Amino acid sequence: MTDADFPVIRLLPKAKPQAIRRGYPWIYANELVMDRRSRGIPAGTVVRLEDAERGVLGLVGFNADSKIAGRMLDPDPEAVIGRDWLVAKLARALALRTRLFDRPYYRLVHAEADGLPGVIIDRFGDVAVIQPNAAWAEVLLADLASALAEVTGVTTILKNAGGRGRALEGLDDVDAVLLGEAPAAPLPVEMNGATYMADLTGGQKTGLFYDQRPNHAFAARLAEGQQVLDVFSHVGGFALAALAQGAQAALAVDGSAAALDLARDGAARMGAQDRFATRQGDAFDVLTAMGQEEARFGLVVCDPPAFAPSKPALEAGLRAYERVARLSAGLVEEGGYLVLCSCSHVADLSSFTGACLRGIGRAGRRAQLLHTGFAGPDHPLLPQLAESGYLKALVFRL
Amino acid sequence: MTDADFPVIRLLPKAKPQAIRRGYPWIYANELVMDRRSRGIPAGTVVRLEDAERGVLGLVGFNADSKIAGRMLDPDPEAVIGRDWLVAKLARALALRTRLFDRPYYRLVHAEADGLPGVIIDRFGDVAVIQPNAAWAEVLLADLASALAEVTGVTTILKNAGGRGRALEGLDDVDAVLLGEAPAAPLPVEMNGATYMADLTGGQKTGLFYDQRPNHAFAARLAEGQQVLDVFSHVGGFALAALAQGAQAALAVDGSAAALDLARDGAARMGAQDRFATRQGDAFDVLTAMGQEEARFGLVVCDPPAFAPSKPALEAGLRAYERVARLSAGLVEEGGYLVLCSCSHVADLSSFTGACLRGIGRAGRRAQLLHTGFAGPDHPLLPQLAESGYLKALVFRL
Repeated sequence: MTDADFPVIRLLPKAKPQAIRRGYPWIYANELVMDRRSRGIPAGTVVRLEDAERGVLGLVGFNADSKIAGRMLDPDPEAVIGRDWLVAKLARALALRTRLFDRPYYRLVHAEADGLPGVIIDRFGDVAVIQPNAAWAEVLLADLASALAEVTGVTTILKNAGGRGRALEGLDDVDAVLLGEAPAAPLPVEMNGATYMADLTGGQKTGLFYDQRPNHAFAARLAEGQQVLDVFSHVGGFALAALAQGAQAALAVDGSAAALDLARDGAARMGAQDRFATRQGDAFDVLTAMGQEEARFGLVVCDPPAFAPSKPALEAGLRAYERVARLSAGLVEEGGYLVLCSCSHVADLSSFTGACLRGIGRAGRRAQLLHTGFAGPDHPLLPQLAESGYLKALVFRL
Repeated sequence: MTDADFPVIRLLPKAKPQAIRRGYPWIYANELVMDRRSRGIPAGTVVRLEDAERGVLGLVGFNADSKIAGRMLDPDPEAVIGRDWLVAKLARALALRTRLFDRPYYRLVHAEADGLPGVIIDRFGDVAVIQPNAAWAEVLLADLASALAEVTGVTTILKNAGGRGRALEGLDDVDAVLLGEAPAAPLPVEMNGATYMADLTGGQKTGLFYDQRPNHAFAARLAEGQQVLDVFSHVGGFALAALAQGAQAALAVDGSAAALDLARDGAARMGAQDRFATRQGDAFDVLTAMGQEEARFGLVVCDPPAFAPSKPALEAGLRAYERVARLSAGLVEEGGYLVLCSCSHVADLSSFTGACLRGIGRAGRRAQLLHTGFAGPDHPLLPQLAESGYLKALVFRL
């Protein structure tokens, strides 16, 4: 294949190619010469990126309709972005996960950090779920699914089009079955000795979040013999791990009846249904009510949705984290443990920690910080892309 | 005991008592009324701290000879700082460690975060080593040792006076045996399936560092079947954990022949001596030489001493971390793993990460960041005291 096969897009003279040369993977539309020719390139086309002096920077997936108009696929302009290239990327990603995990349940591809910009692939045994959240991957989706089946041997591949990023790329939100048949029922997934039910086709869509696995494991070490409260529990992430490690009892709180049904199903499969209870409702209401009831727990976990999903929402988000910390700290026994999580990438570790400490202080409590955890290693980061480090879990003793 | 029993020291009007009320544990000499009476209070005396309006802030360990003239012991002015008080603090610290660890090998007391300012206690089974790095603890040392024996049942207690903090407190550097008899030989300590030899009375003084335990464990997950290089190895921290997890071979590099002897002793007790080798020398020289030899490893770990022990040393320290990253990245196989550590508290996570990335980039490599680890949970932090978070371990895949 020759250079002539790829359309060329070019950086504006004001744009700085150094960051891209050092591995920054995104090229913004306002850094590019966006003439009529560029705008006419179909979304998802692989193009050659050049700097303003016509120096070649590599091959990028191009999308004139996205603010992130270019995503670096390969710094080598001679690369052939096709099925073999996808096989190589997937094989490299698989080698890491095979080393890290005994069983094939993990995030297999974590987008830019695994060299497949905008692409998320979660694996649940023989079933994989692809989130193609960038136009280039949508164009190459058939090759991606075929490569995935070859590399991993999965027999079912689902496309989840529910990712927030797809709308920003001008992509639709239509799910699909790319290989095999969609599972008729939620799948059991074992992690940290617990059994979780993953609903891959309904419910919360991605079915199960693998990112908290090491934080579940850490918190579970503190759970033996304890009464545990798991707020924003989803399908029972922290609660079921705690039960697996010998918690006396666990109470899961969530707004979603469907998620709590799956949590109860998981507890039953673990034979832990007698130690497990659920309470459906708004987490703030439930925390407030429990405070009035003077409920106390040896371990309280709060793993809320992103309260600060964007920069304008940061201040309000930090106030919400502070409120969660205040309400939940009041429910922790003297000498007990409190786990506070954030999945807001705009709330950095320092400001999230500050919000937690203000909340704990306002509850009249003092804290030791035992552990700071992030997403598990099947969610690697591209160091050049600070945005990819979103998940934080702080473990306090009060 | 009445108020009159305690001398009083008072904050200057310019000093802000709010931080102390929120749990900040240190009172600097330049925040206090330091008249002749204050200066006459013997170092290590427990005094009552008042704000400029005579509001009581609590009981502090006082030392007019230290820049940190006051260390908060108890916000309750009615507390009795004696043997029973020490027993309560130690019992609380022990409850956490007993929950976290199956065997009694851990840091039992991590100073301010465990409510005993300036006091470090490491436990090695029936032997404990106290580092009393603040004057108040030196004064109460007999009570502390007695309380420690009661709470833990240890039969040997050593005093290690080698801490850097002691000189700043005007304390001597004379080690002592406070209970029982000093062990005649290094003690075997099992962690992460490996056996380490802890020399408690000679060698590196504290014998063994527990802080890297979870980072050893994480790195060891990447070690199976690999050739491993452990630079600044001390008694074999990362290398022996890697061998325990099935590394093909491990090479430990350190400047200290005594430390490498202990590492070899540990490997022999593990039955892993055939897979273990050592190379004594300056780490930079050895890394440079190995680069020239074109040596390659599946896993390389660099856990150097603090290159930036103080703020004036920060820039030079970051350059040293960058150099370590550059030299070591060149020794990592394609697709292999690199673990880079810092124990400099002035080099924060962001600047340390930046130095590592610059070094990796200058070696012509690209990296995924798999894991960011800190000191283990037997090294809790007082959140108000950012200085206590010193250890950082970054795990990259290249």
